[in-house]
Amino acid sequence: MISFADPKTLTHDELEEGSTFAPRFDAHGLITVVTVEDGSKDVLMVAHMNAETLGLTLETGIAHYWSRSRQSIWKKGETSGEMQEVVDLRTDCDQDCLVMTVRQTGRGAACHTGRKSCFYRRIETSGHTASLADTGLPRLFDPATVYSK
Amino acid sequence: MISFADPKTLTHDELEEGSTFAPRFDAHGLITVVTVEDGSKDVLMVAHMNAETLGLTLETGIAHYWSRSRQSIWKKGETSGEMQEVVDLRTDCDQDCLVMTVRQTGRGAACHTGRKSCFYRRIETSGHTASLADTGLPRLFDPATVYSK
Repeated sequence: MISFADPKTLTHDELEEGSTFAPRFDAHGLITVVTVEDGSKDVLMVAHMNAETLGLTLETGIAHYWSRSRQSIWKKGETSGEMQEVVDLRTDCDQDCLVMTVRQTGRGAACHTGRKSCFYRRIETSGHTASLADTGLPRLFDPATVYSK
Repeated sequence: MISFADPKTLTHDELEEGSTFAPRFDAHGLITVVTVEDGSKDVLMVAHMNAETLGLTLETGIAHYWSRSRQSIWKKGETSGEMQEVVDLRTDCDQDCLVMTVRQTGRGAACHTGRKSCFYRRIETSGHTASLADTGLPRLFDPATVYSK
């Protein structure tokens, strides 16, 4: 199992400019991951990893998240078949966030609603009201069928 | 000031498929924002907004975040001149995250280190060790000069 350096042992400069990977997990032991599709560069989803699932992701090359709702390891696509093969993984300046570029397998749907991306609604404003407009992203699978088992 | 619907008043289906924008701010009153550059689609940064700065962003068309370290409104670029003009703002299926597409003004650097993006280091593994490799993203400004005032 891959282990990670403790960010508290690094100086500010080492954290931001160095070659030591010391992910800054939050109070719940989680780090935010932005998942981007290889090629299109569409943001597919935003989720979280803990040290264990970050290690599993790096070891297997397949995205493993931590499900906050189920409080369990979430191997993306285990139910739906929509797995994610990791192409590139980066951290940000202060190492509290990751951007992961993936090849989305299966029908190409990262979202549990069956759409390619979770970001299928645009925010629009009119006066002091904000509302959502569907961008028309099609469903690539029927969630009622896929998740009914 | 723009006000937002309370997500607790929505059904699961309304939250995920409806046209009511009801951002699910976390226990600290914050929502995660992924900021993407218009055109290149590069992920520039990941930050947070509270209801006030989300409203300011929507009203002005200029990115306003909430600084967790300073606990204050953070009008991006107020010190550095690197403001962000909002081109598109989307929410995800369960409305607890935003993707904001922007035109980065100034020298085009979203990161406080002077680089275009905060994601300038790639995670690499060798055996059970993960380390960071600089991707060579150049500095577009000198942070020592810009933030010394």
